[in-house]
Amino acid sequence: MKNGLDEKPDLRKLTHNFSAGPAALPHSVLLEAQSELLNWNTKGASIMEMSHRSEEFLSIANGASIDLRNLLSIPTNYKILFLQGGATQQFSQIPLNLLARKGKAGYVNTGIWSCKAIKEARRFGKINIIATSEPNQYRSIPDIKQWDIVSDLSYIHYTPNETIGGVEFSSIPDTGDIPLVADMSSTILSRPIDVSRFGLIYASAQKNIGISGITVIIIREDLLGYASNLCPSTLNYRLLSDSNSMYNTPPTFSWYMAGLIFKWLKKQGGVECMSNKNRIKKNILYDFIDASSLYLNQVDQKDRSWMNVPFLLKDTSLNFQFLSESKKSGLLNLKGHRLVGGMRASIYNAVEISSVYALINFMKEFEKRHV
Amino acid sequence: MKNGLDEKPDLRKLTHNFSAGPAALPHSVLLEAQSELLNWNTKGASIMEMSHRSEEFLSIANGASIDLRNLLSIPTNYKILFLQGGATQQFSQIPLNLLARKGKAGYVNTGIWSCKAIKEARRFGKINIIATSEPNQYRSIPDIKQWDIVSDLSYIHYTPNETIGGVEFSSIPDTGDIPLVADMSSTILSRPIDVSRFGLIYASAQKNIGISGITVIIIREDLLGYASNLCPSTLNYRLLSDSNSMYNTPPTFSWYMAGLIFKWLKKQGGVECMSNKNRIKKNILYDFIDASSLYLNQVDQKDRSWMNVPFLLKDTSLNFQFLSESKKSGLLNLKGHRLVGGMRASIYNAVEISSVYALINFMKEFEKRHV
Repeated sequence: MKNGLDEKPDLRKLTHNFSAGPAALPHSVLLEAQSELLNWNTKGASIMEMSHRSEEFLSIANGASIDLRNLLSIPTNYKILFLQGGATQQFSQIPLNLLARKGKAGYVNTGIWSCKAIKEARRFGKINIIATSEPNQYRSIPDIKQWDIVSDLSYIHYTPNETIGGVEFSSIPDTGDIPLVADMSSTILSRPIDVSRFGLIYASAQKNIGISGITVIIIREDLLGYASNLCPSTLNYRLLSDSNSMYNTPPTFSWYMAGLIFKWLKKQGGVECMSNKNRIKKNILYDFIDASSLYLNQVDQKDRSWMNVPFLLKDTSLNFQFLSESKKSGLLNLKGHRLVGGMRASIYNAVEISSVYALINFMKEFEKRHV
Repeated sequence: MKNGLDEKPDLRKLTHNFSAGPAALPHSVLLEAQSELLNWNTKGASIMEMSHRSEEFLSIANGASIDLRNLLSIPTNYKILFLQGGATQQFSQIPLNLLARKGKAGYVNTGIWSCKAIKEARRFGKINIIATSEPNQYRSIPDIKQWDIVSDLSYIHYTPNETIGGVEFSSIPDTGDIPLVADMSSTILSRPIDVSRFGLIYASAQKNIGISGITVIIIREDLLGYASNLCPSTLNYRLLSDSNSMYNTPPTFSWYMAGLIFKWLKKQGGVECMSNKNRIKKNILYDFIDASSLYLNQVDQKDRSWMNVPFLLKDTSLNFQFLSESKKSGLLNLKGHRLVGGMRASIYNAVEISSVYALINFMKEFEKRHV
């Protein structure tokens, strides 16, 4: 111990974290947070001890917002909000804020997260399911040409990437004048997107943005101001936007961590470079799975997620052994979501290509020993 | 720099942080968090990178809950929830969850925070103001004997400590069978309380519990299950309680920090010992203010806050000088709330007696030089 620092940093180098979220963070970002945890910018206090209205914290908050705007080339007619409650809170917050525009909304059902969003939205008004891949067990994305789009919808909601099912849209659906609302929790910042195609984008932070406890909203300004009378003030986009996400005390440390991640992304070369790295990661992993005789991914090749790779062992009696041996080898959090079982490797931005190789090497060895 | 650690920890010893929140944290807690930030409990990952459903995080979450129950002797028929949204979100969440019981609620108005709670609650149903200290500029607590309590109220809401006004209830009002709901954000854990006298206690964390982004709710079990049909699921106490505050991903790092604070409080001798320390702190500060010819606190002596000490300079032309000189002397965040002006010293649990003496010494010197 020196100055309170645990001198076992090397243990992290022996592990690879495939958690679906809260997920792996870049090592250098953790080091930076650790280094200034007691004394931010020589101010004599931790960032955790600073008022959210202090000039110090405001500089961090605004910096994070500007960096995110640059990273995703967010047009000036979009507001960026940093909120609490997670993506799940958006499942009610979105209808409470947008449904009143036209009185009903369209939802696309592509898996467990879409279903949760639909179930909650129905509590607040009329919801049309305009497309669904339920009939084929959510193994592909419903063809946009078949979507049942009517003109008087307040918005159309979809889930570009299903974190549990591992299906992902490879392009942005064209919904004409109807605002497109997207739950990008597990895909934001993994590759460039054309924000101008969306009415509202939301994403919980604990995958590609930072740590849990903060949620990013990117909303087109003309969609502010439609909140229902029964919308709690803390969930009202107009009030939250007018107060620069400080209607009340924001989660300052989570916001600060998001800012560090954005700076790290810029240093990595931005979202375009991330995209190249992520394409390599998912390609080598899916290629290996498809070529193996033990492992199986059931999603249509064209609709496979870049970030969440679920896979099954064809011999399910080996599941327990796979999980226990992989953990011993330092490959953490490979267990599939409790609702679907099997395995899942989440390979968000902070997961290095070398970690994916470590996983593949283990899977190869395991297969040799057991097939 | 060694292992990423900034070797300037001593700067913290030269500062005293009187922020109203996010507020000062114990030095030893920050050192502990820093020491294990990259590698929690030799698991090879940061606590920020761990799934909220992992056994590692569940042990932290449950540990924090058990420690808080012990610290406040919370009876077994009360649930402890760790939620997002801050105390301000409770201003809507409480009526959305409790108002339906009887159709109306009683509120006590003792200052700016009470007013905010009342204004928001009125959006959801019938609210009676059963007592108010507005006529005397919120300088005292309205006598409980004068409260206009009718029997058919869903609950009675009050603010035991007004963070901005610096008034505090010295005892718990007796509301008979009507559940008492209390915003304890800035007073919880500062001294023992009899939890069994309350229906619901809520407190944002960024004062005496830890860092911003998490809110503690202590709720009597029989008050669960009355949520309005239009209550978002993420705000429904019953769902949140049934899922052990994991209806969706909780703010894991804020929860972890709260757990460290609870352990620190236990090491300090618990809430009884804190109470003794806090009594000394507030006594020496108020005594000094009352004896001075420059400084003034306008709250009735019997109703003065233990945690938030607002004070005015009788010569207000010295305000700017006071703030700038105190900051240079390492006395941070003494500016009063933007709505009321003047000065305020928040002296929460983590503020040491020595910091209060440092403040008094500065005030004494400043007075000598200017009066």
